[in-house]
Amino acid sequence: MCLLREREREMKAVGVRALNFRLNQFGETRKRFLRSFSTLMSPPSKAIVYEQHGSPDSVTRLVNLPPVEVRDNDVCVKMIAAPINPSDINRIEGVYPVRPPVPAVGGYEGVGEVYAVGSKVNALSPGDWVIPSPPSSGTWQTYVVKEESVWHKIDKSCPIEYASTITVNPLTALRMLEDFVSLASGDSMVQNGATSIVGQCVIQLARLRGISTINIIRDRAGSDEARENLKALGADQVFSESQLNVKNVKSLLGELPEPALGFNCVGGNAASLVLKFLRERGTMVTYGGMSKKPITVSTTSFIFKDLALKGFWLQNWLSLGKVKECREMIDYLLGLARDGKLQYETELAPFDEFPVALDKALGKVGRQPKQVITF
Amino acid sequence: MCLLREREREMKAVGVRALNFRLNQFGETRKRFLRSFSTLMSPPSKAIVYEQHGSPDSVTRLVNLPPVEVRDNDVCVKMIAAPINPSDINRIEGVYPVRPPVPAVGGYEGVGEVYAVGSKVNALSPGDWVIPSPPSSGTWQTYVVKEESVWHKIDKSCPIEYASTITVNPLTALRMLEDFVSLASGDSMVQNGATSIVGQCVIQLARLRGISTINIIRDRAGSDEARENLKALGADQVFSESQLNVKNVKSLLGELPEPALGFNCVGGNAASLVLKFLRERGTMVTYGGMSKKPITVSTTSFIFKDLALKGFWLQNWLSLGKVKECREMIDYLLGLARDGKLQYETELAPFDEFPVALDKALGKVGRQPKQVITF
Repeated sequence: MCLLREREREMKAVGVRALNFRLNQFGETRKRFLRSFSTLMSPPSKAIVYEQHGSPDSVTRLVNLPPVEVRDNDVCVKMIAAPINPSDINRIEGVYPVRPPVPAVGGYEGVGEVYAVGSKVNALSPGDWVIPSPPSSGTWQTYVVKEESVWHKIDKSCPIEYASTITVNPLTALRMLEDFVSLASGDSMVQNGATSIVGQCVIQLARLRGISTINIIRDRAGSDEARENLKALGADQVFSESQLNVKNVKSLLGELPEPALGFNCVGGNAASLVLKFLRERGTMVTYGGMSKKPITVSTTSFIFKDLALKGFWLQNWLSLGKVKECREMIDYLLGLARDGKLQYETELAPFDEFPVALDKALGKVGRQPKQVITF
Repeated sequence: MCLLREREREMKAVGVRALNFRLNQFGETRKRFLRSFSTLMSPPSKAIVYEQHGSPDSVTRLVNLPPVEVRDNDVCVKMIAAPINPSDINRIEGVYPVRPPVPAVGGYEGVGEVYAVGSKVNALSPGDWVIPSPPSSGTWQTYVVKEESVWHKIDKSCPIEYASTITVNPLTALRMLEDFVSLASGDSMVQNGATSIVGQCVIQLARLRGISTINIIRDRAGSDEARENLKALGADQVFSESQLNVKNVKSLLGELPEPALGFNCVGGNAASLVLKFLRERGTMVTYGGMSKKPITVSTTSFIFKDLALKGFWLQNWLSLGKVKECREMIDYLLGLARDGKLQYETELAPFDEFPVALDKALGKVGRQPKQVITF
């Protein structure tokens, strides 16, 4: 904290809280400056900021943000790594239903090291590794200041590429397996978009529970390799969409029981295929729409097959306020990742090459692993 | 029973049970005839029979069925009235997932008077009015013989057009209001196909519970009259589909709260309109598909609006074996019908004019009330 105080004195500009910063509002900042010289302040932060919604590669820019006050209950975290998730892109595009007001710092999850703590913070100390849990916006910056309650201390044994990405995709996979249909060892489930990180996590988490997975992937160059990769993770069956262009997809199940649970993150034909695999009274959970096509369902699927269609949005679940439950699951997932039981591909990208990583995340240079920014 | 025995002696042919009869199998019937002269037999029955699946107006015919044995636990019922329901037509067409093996007698519900009872039947006596409850196939005939357990004795105060039609459509409406979303007085619900009998029952049953209804009807000649009729039944809002061709249908709700429950029996655009009215976390229940168009749903409806889509099929509910619960509801509904609190339009048609009634039920002569055959 001494370091911080020294830095503080060196500051020429003083800041407002990251999510409320208003660039060039020097009148406001001067008032704060005058208030107290002893106020604990963060270091200045380099941040990926968007001032309006639009295509992320045109509306985001690197900004040097002035220090912000670290209040009594706040913790200042020096970010270590943060991913570029599809939902981050949607937030910047302005198509996400819940999004921070602009201007805003990008990013929604990540891992960092505690840099300084406010006077009333007891449970965290400088040097601790923490993640915002539930996830919280504004992680694409070098220093984040948020209330102590936002931060969850984690074990340092988990690689940063997992620690920084555990709270969105793996947690989605885990919640979806838990929340909709009670599956037991020996049961099966079906999903499309199986090569997505959620899809890969579903395969591995299901396998740990003795649940078989039927996986649907797109027809594309490299789908044989994708199939083998998924099988190496524990997938029982992997079909490309064209392989399922048969009269009765269930004839392809082999020894597997008909699934009572399906996950859809694609829409269109790929969603219809999930529905075809489901057994009577089965449930399909939609959590994404990568094809941008709607889901079409026959009347008889509802009446005679008695299927139920539902949706999952992690943010809805998180809004239920189950912080403790959430963090227990995070620790469970981090443990799996540490032990190599939960794997998915990521690529670390240095912060100063953010535009390159963003282009990869936007799919401009073909299929790429999830981009994880390191600070 | 004396009457029956006399008739029995007059018989030239003797019969097998209605649902297993095989026409012209005189060898079998002769064996039965020889077995016992004291066997209690039904009168011969005139029945609407189909020997193969197909268009009801070409595959059904009136057949004189030989008497069938009334066994110890059986009850022989002289039918009074039975409706032609859309599901009856689907069964004959062979497009219904559960259907009796052919040849079969049509019909699935109705009301009749006990004509004779087997020696072990105690709870029913000749002259009682009964309905098959749960409903049971083969009601389009003058005499039906089924086990005592099939029959539910009803009060004779309910008009036959209601007594004969209460177990399918009104019960569907009641179950759907009970089974999916817990609504309280002051809440609202939305439905399409509101002019259907289920739709009309929904309006009235909801109103009795203080629940407002938002009703969607087709654009067609006479839709103004249909609107007024539904309002007379208690509908709060009635919109034709074209009236809902606006950006935000909820702006049309006026004072009504957003509905958490929707019923769909149409599909296509009419189903999408129900979804648009639903509030976050709402549920749409599909119980029919009159437009023969599928239901199309956006990904965001599932994820961000958290809608759930389910189906209802009365037969599924009935298969749960809740006979007592079912009959209590039937009595409740019959009481409402008797008191004029549950109304819908029917047209009584004499049995010997069945082909005319069938044509009306098939929609060949424009929109017609539900046809109820009287025997």
